[in-house]
Amino acid sequence: MAVVVTAAMVVIGDEILSGRTKDRNIGHLAEILTAVGIDLKEVRVVPDEEDEIVAAVNALRQRYRYVFTTGGIGPTHDDITADSVAKAFGVPCEYDARAYPMLEAHYDARGMEYTEARKRMARMPRGADLIDNPISVAPGFRIGNVHVMAGVPAIFQAMLDNVLPTLETGTRLLSETVPCPYGEGVIGGPLAEVQKAHPETIIGSYPKYVDGRFWTELVVRARSPEALEAGRRAIEQMLADIAASLPNQA
Amino acid sequence: MAVVVTAAMVVIGDEILSGRTKDRNIGHLAEILTAVGIDLKEVRVVPDEEDEIVAAVNALRQRYRYVFTTGGIGPTHDDITADSVAKAFGVPCEYDARAYPMLEAHYDARGMEYTEARKRMARMPRGADLIDNPISVAPGFRIGNVHVMAGVPAIFQAMLDNVLPTLETGTRLLSETVPCPYGEGVIGGPLAEVQKAHPETIIGSYPKYVDGRFWTELVVRARSPEALEAGRRAIEQMLADIAASLPNQA
Repeated sequence: MAVVVTAAMVVIGDEILSGRTKDRNIGHLAEILTAVGIDLKEVRVVPDEEDEIVAAVNALRQRYRYVFTTGGIGPTHDDITADSVAKAFGVPCEYDARAYPMLEAHYDARGMEYTEARKRMARMPRGADLIDNPISVAPGFRIGNVHVMAGVPAIFQAMLDNVLPTLETGTRLLSETVPCPYGEGVIGGPLAEVQKAHPETIIGSYPKYVDGRFWTELVVRARSPEALEAGRRAIEQMLADIAASLPNQA
Repeated sequence: MAVVVTAAMVVIGDEILSGRTKDRNIGHLAEILTAVGIDLKEVRVVPDEEDEIVAAVNALRQRYRYVFTTGGIGPTHDDITADSVAKAFGVPCEYDARAYPMLEAHYDARGMEYTEARKRMARMPRGADLIDNPISVAPGFRIGNVHVMAGVPAIFQAMLDNVLPTLETGTRLLSETVPCPYGEGVIGGPLAEVQKAHPETIIGSYPKYVDGRFWTELVVRARSPEALEAGRRAIEQMLADIAASLPNQA
């Protein structure tokens, strides 16, 4: 039996919504989760506003097995993720007894002042577990099924590497890509028939438009190798049939 | 008086959530809307599932002045955006009397069959207006405050160019970036004071981590040039004060 594990993501940050910063974390999380057998089902990008963060986290944590957030856990006034997630869970946001001395020791060792701003990074919802940050020390955290991580891609990726082994994973959704020389208008009808005949697969069609010409990538996904193989063969047969019937539209 | 116009985006597509395709439309829409004075307040990425699309469109169209969707308007079985948006508005999805002959003429002129799949691209919610597609003819559409556009970035961008002149725009949120040689732990405290003293600005702090070293981009935003200038000056003064007090931490 295929095991399905679902997840959602909340990207927190005005800078993404203004277009100033181009998000790179959605694609990375999506790829990694797919690779380990977790289905990313929804992403929300929300501004640096407490009510919006609380609403998104609460909507998604009830609906999906895991939630991952990026952004807003630094030391400045616009970093309000820890407070917002604490509010979402109805617990206080306070200095964490592990994070506080860890950061203090880090700055002491470098002769740097442990400023109020830096102390902010030790604040997290009561009951949270730390997510190790091998790059810049200030940890992320997990509370319930919500994993709160940095927005800087290098740090997000390092934190995610630390989180992955702790996650329950599902049956991997296998996929194969079949390049198709025809535009979607040619294959749309027969491809829908293939999908109908192979309900245990998910067949996607992705139009490509390069140098004024359309072609298509067909992707078949399934949780069993047998279903995947049957779907792929049916697509290849369909392409062969089209080639035979439409020699001039290749 | 500053006029605020809000917007949200729905990115429709399993291929984004699987990580197979990296979204490029969020960043583009965000940039363009910022440039014309529309505030993008939320983005949702949802799968190719009717219920999910309906729920996202209905949640966002009631809350924001404009909604923009990308993806799922092609000719294949997994292109279900037109049906889903029609369902969200409670109207039938049917062949459009302008789009149907336009596509027919296009394929006729090229000696290409007007397949059932291609006809699917002429289906839209009753009462929709067309959004011109200068690249591949098949139009997007607008119904109510929802603009439905292609997922292929070149086509999305061309459609958006056609939509922009029809939008009500707000007072542009001006911004200036001040590069800051200090990490956020150094500036966090004083920057919060600057933000407090300049409530008519939105000050963001964006940590950069390059070659093992932290620096920060400070961005001040305001809808009036005077407020922007005052905020920028206060940040520069703050940086000068820090430089004077912390010569060894530059």
